Amino acid sequence: MHTHSPELHKAQNRRPVGIEMYQWATDLFPICRSITGPGVRETLAYFKRLLPGLVVHSVPSGTRAFDWTVPPEWTIRDAYIADEDGNRIVDFRKHNLHVVGYSEPVDRWLDRAELDQYLHSLPNQPDAVPNVMSYYVRRWGFCLTDRQRRALPPGRYHAVIDSDLKPGVLNYGELILPGRETREILLSTYICHPSLANNELSGPVVTAALARWLTERHDRRFTYRIIFIPETIGSIVYLSRHHEEMKAKTIAGFVVTCAGDERTYSYLASRQGGTLADRVALHVLSRKVGKFDSYSFLESGSDERQYCSPGIDLPVCIVMRTKFGCYPEYHTSLDDLSLISPDGLTGSYDVIRGCLEVLEANRVWDRTTLCDPQLGRRGLYPTLTTRDSGLQARKLLNILSYADGTRDLIALAERVDMDAMECDALLRRLAAEELVQQVS
Amino acid sequence: MHTHSPELHKAQNRRPVGIEMYQWATDLFPICRSITGPGVRETLAYFKRLLPGLVVHSVPSGTRAFDWTVPPEWTIRDAYIADEDGNRIVDFRKHNLHVVGYSEPVDRWLDRAELDQYLHSLPNQPDAVPNVMSYYVRRWGFCLTDRQRRALPPGRYHAVIDSDLKPGVLNYGELILPGRETREILLSTYICHPSLANNELSGPVVTAALARWLTERHDRRFTYRIIFIPETIGSIVYLSRHHEEMKAKTIAGFVVTCAGDERTYSYLASRQGGTLADRVALHVLSRKVGKFDSYSFLESGSDERQYCSPGIDLPVCIVMRTKFGCYPEYHTSLDDLSLISPDGLTGSYDVIRGCLEVLEANRVWDRTTLCDPQLGRRGLYPTLTTRDSGLQARKLLNILSYADGTRDLIALAERVDMDAMECDALLRRLAAEELVQQVS
Amino acid sequence: MHTHSPELHKAQNRRPVGIEMYQWATDLFPICRSITGPGVRETLAYFKRLLPGLVVHSVPSGTRAFDWTVPPEWTIRDAYIADEDGNRIVDFRKHNLHVVGYSEPVDRWLDRAELDQYLHSLPNQPDAVPNVMSYYVRRWGFCLTDRQRRALPPGRYHAVIDSDLKPGVLNYGELILPGRETREILLSTYICHPSLANNELSGPVVTAALARWLTERHDRRFTYRIIFIPETIGSIVYLSRHHEEMKAKTIAGFVVTCAGDERTYSYLASRQGGTLADRVALHVLSRKVGKFDSYSFLESGSDERQYCSPGIDLPVCIVMRTKFGCYPEYHTSLDDLSLISPDGLTGSYDVIRGCLEVLEANRVWDRTTLCDPQLGRRGLYPTLTTRDSGLQARKLLNILSYADGTRDLIALAERVDMDAMECDALLRRLAAEELVQQVS
Repeated sequence: MHTHSPELHKAQNRRPVGIEMYQWATDLFPICRSITGPGVRETLAYFKRLLPGLVVHSVPSGTRAFDWTVPPEWTIRDAYIADEDGNRIVDFRKHNLHVVGYSEPVDRWLDRAELDQYLHSLPNQPDAVPNVMSYYVRRWGFCLTDRQRRALPPGRYHAVIDSDLKPGVLNYGELILPGRETREILLSTYICHPSLANNELSGPVVTAALARWLTERHDRRFTYRIIFIPETIGSIVYLSRHHEEMKAKTIAGFVVTCAGDERTYSYLASRQGGTLADRVALHVLSRKVGKFDSYSFLESGSDERQYCSPGIDLPVCIVMRTKFGCYPEYHTSLDDLSLISPDGLTGSYDVIRGCLEVLEANRVWDRTTLCDPQLGRRGLYPTLTTRDSGLQARKLLNILSYADGTRDLIALAERVDMDAMECDALLRRLAAEELVQQVS
Repeated sequence: MHTHSPELHKAQNRRPVGIEMYQWATDLFPICRSITGPGVRETLAYFKRLLPGLVVHSVPSGTRAFDWTVPPEWTIRDAYIADEDGNRIVDFRKHNLHVVGYSEPVDRWLDRAELDQYLHSLPNQPDAVPNVMSYYVRRWGFCLTDRQRRALPPGRYHAVIDSDLKPGVLNYGELILPGRETREILLSTYICHPSLANNELSGPVVTAALARWLTERHDRRFTYRIIFIPETIGSIVYLSRHHEEMKAKTIAGFVVTCAGDERTYSYLASRQGGTLADRVALHVLSRKVGKFDSYSFLESGSDERQYCSPGIDLPVCIVMRTKFGCYPEYHTSLDDLSLISPDGLTGSYDVIRGCLEVLEANRVWDRTTLCDPQLGRRGLYPTLTTRDSGLQARKLLNILSYADGTRDLIALAERVDMDAMECDALLRRLAAEELVQQVS
Repeated sequence: MHTHSPELHKAQNRRPVGIEMYQWATDLFPICRSITGPGVRETLAYFKRLLPGLVVHSVPSGTRAFDWTVPPEWTIRDAYIADEDGNRIVDFRKHNLHVVGYSEPVDRWLDRAELDQYLHSLPNQPDAVPNVMSYYVRRWGFCLTDRQRRALPPGRYHAVIDSDLKPGVLNYGELILPGRETREILLSTYICHPSLANNELSGPVVTAALARWLTERHDRRFTYRIIFIPETIGSIVYLSRHHEEMKAKTIAGFVVTCAGDERTYSYLASRQGGTLADRVALHVLSRKVGKFDSYSFLESGSDERQYCSPGIDLPVCIVMRTKFGCYPEYHTSLDDLSLISPDGLTGSYDVIRGCLEVLEANRVWDRTTLCDPQLGRRGLYPTLTTRDSGLQARKLLNILSYADGTRDLIALAERVDMDAMECDALLRRLAAEELVQQVS
């Protein structure tokens, strides 16, 4: 009897999935994504090659979604600050974080003091280029390290941003994997940040690997709704189209983000807590990881805010590695491919896949007999009664004590202090002897 | 954004109210109060000058009130023990604690041993004159320091008490301040102890200052019932006349007692706990004071016993400084004007007023949008998205997460871990943008 | 006012009951009991002499009981292993643990290696003879110390077991003591182990002493169902006959086991916890013992498994000394009369009797007055009010605060932080003054 299901155990040692995920992140890293534009489309096209069932949707600029409006589409071709000799001293081609996201076009000569108003840097992290965006107010600007900024000499500078802000579309990807039941499990990840690794690419690559595993699993009980969206505006647009259907069908969901470092594991609760998603996440994290960081919804900040918002109230939480905002490289050029690793990504993959496996197995069981059944004649109890014979059958007896038709597998496993998948395996042995049965 | 409401903050630095309250206590200190008699009337007359709306009621001796009967009225004019030379060695005129409260008249010569049966002192506090009363069994007696008692030489002593115990009235004061709503908040304090400062005068003077503040506040939402009564018999008599009306109307109430020292703050829970009074008291104490002493109703002892008694069950708790019975000077001549201070009184005033302000603001709010509203275009969220922009709007977002029509301001503030008045101010900013609305 | 009821207090110093119980255990120790057979009948006959009302029932072999079947009856007359010279080197007559319980008859010569397959010993406890049984698969075997086993030289051995396994009966004893009410309290103990002291005889002797005390108590409020059964199969057979009636009538029950050592006290919760049996057990253990070991139902192992099993769900828990399976001598020859003592048995007797006394007194009380009654004129409160007068009447006032018709005596005592029997005595003083009354 293993603590982990054999499948899951295999996964943990199957390094290839980690190496694949890391390779996908490496491929996608250079693309300059934003909440709209060609970078998002290029990213979605990459995932569609991995997941042929992925459907890419387009929502026109100006479309209303609850309190929001889809913004114009942003295209960025080039951006730089040059000195009087024409040397590019801040260059979008070197790192796409150098330009403020959604910058309007500009072609101006400025002196050093005037230029400074358009510069963004981090005095406390003098070697990091910050990630700055201005989606809903027209601006332009450049980001650079504070060290570089402070070294800029007086003089004249040429600021050039070759961009468009025009009516276009907002794109997102959607993959529906039907199961035997119409009840759904949601996986949601975002694809709207430029070259950032943990707080961007780790999410989509782990989601893609999970989607591929689910695609190959032909005995899916539940239907899976897997979406790749721009953060916030994307989930709001998506919910404005699907929230009634999702509310009726969704039994659990997970936002997949910050899934690639090796520092820790984290759990961020749903708004109300205690949903099926929370319960399975806490069970699997406790059993597989043991020690992890726990955050209340007061620390929320990604698409779970929309999925859990009052009136929407989907059962969605987050299982991740180090939480967004809680590591120093967050939203800077330091959140690069060195921050994530195949092992880090595999850790997230294993825990979320563990959650999905428990959900698939999550049923209510009830006993078929009054009083303990005679396990001995069924080969489930030592026929020789010694001081330890009870201990050997303890797990079966405890399951029989609490498989009383009132609790699902997760609650039963918590009650008898066992791993849910081990508990499921023992329930199936008891079911083979007709000592327990599923409650429909 | 301040942690405390501007009004409250001003109060904390407005030393004048503390000095006024202390002056009132100084004025009232010499009066010999008891549960009936001229001392009570003189005290009530003093407060009527401060609070012209105060109505003084009279209930005849012999009136039944639940299990009790209003006792005869006690008038004390003089009392002393003199030695054979006529020297007053224990003298009511020096301290009114020297006579046992409700002593019947006496004029007798006794020898030292016989006299001792009528003396009360505290061996463990040899310099304190105890406060002793015998309301319901006819007695007479004198209280003195144990040091003085032990020094009394053999000889003959003349014990004289010039008092009356005759049918009369029990008095109490009542101030009703109407609000926009008929629902009421109760403030109850007692006026029945002789020259005692913390466990007597601190209560009525803080109550009077609160009553004056409420009188000046013309936008009162709730009606305020403010009563000055003799302890126990007074609340029983008052409830016997008003309990049905109070049960229908009272949403929260506070017994105001032991409000003047600077040693600590204390909370004594209502009988069942968890009432609106308890909730606001715990919120305000936690936010304004931080560390305070907490007592269960098993430690009750003042009029909250009657307000909370089974079948009455008003939502009443106590917010005070050092609890009655929990400081060494309690019920002795050491509980004098040196034990209380303007700052001590102001502390109680601020905390109870803070409770009333939160109650006035205590409403249920609900959102008007599905998903997060776009705060940016309303000037409530940074238009430039940086790694810290979310933190700046965190409080508004958290309020939007939990202002879902299911919890009042106090519960909302507790849920989002904020001060209720700060939370209220932010809700009003959101309401101005029509992003939240009050639930009727 | 004592913390313990006078009766109970007397019991604690009444050593005779402990000496009697120990004597009964001594008398019964040599009998070779099993789940059926003459040893059980001899044991029941002994208790019938102590408790003339005890009825001995017989259930034929082959009778179905839920998932089980009553096994054949086992009779053991002699058993030994002799060496080639005819010396008995393992001898049932020296200790009845030497033969595996339910051994089929055998009369064979075996060499040392072959013999070893039929031997049972404990390498970790080389001087202990283990207790081994094979009720439901036909086997034979011998138990011996590991030291003896390892010292057995090569050679031929003669294994002889003179036993029967034939259709017969399963016996149990039942004593019903009617009370004023038909509602019942269950005491269940087992009588199926051979010469074992704590994990066998301590249970029936304490149960017999409690049954005798209950028999002598002619004012029994509840009916008592007291049963002496073989473990597991006995409770399953008994429940198969009586579970509907017991479910309708039983308000609390206790399995009496491991009741004789002096090491600790233990509590094992019912399956769901929080039943009346759990509540009274926790109250009495906390008040009388203070510190005790607490086990969840996940550690269950005796007849409470059947009484609490889903669909049966009787309110049954265990109050015992050191729990079965949690002391090194458990199920070995070291669990002998030196492990138990008159004091150890008396401790169990006192605690369980304390539980029964609280249950008998467990009623719901309500007040008769609104507001506090005037205790002074009833002699229940000092007529002289001093700083300590409130403290003296504190217990009465607290009882009056919470005797509000909503909680039984146990809950009231817990709420006011008092011993239930002291609380009951004070309630009866208040009832004599017509200040509280029982709620029917």
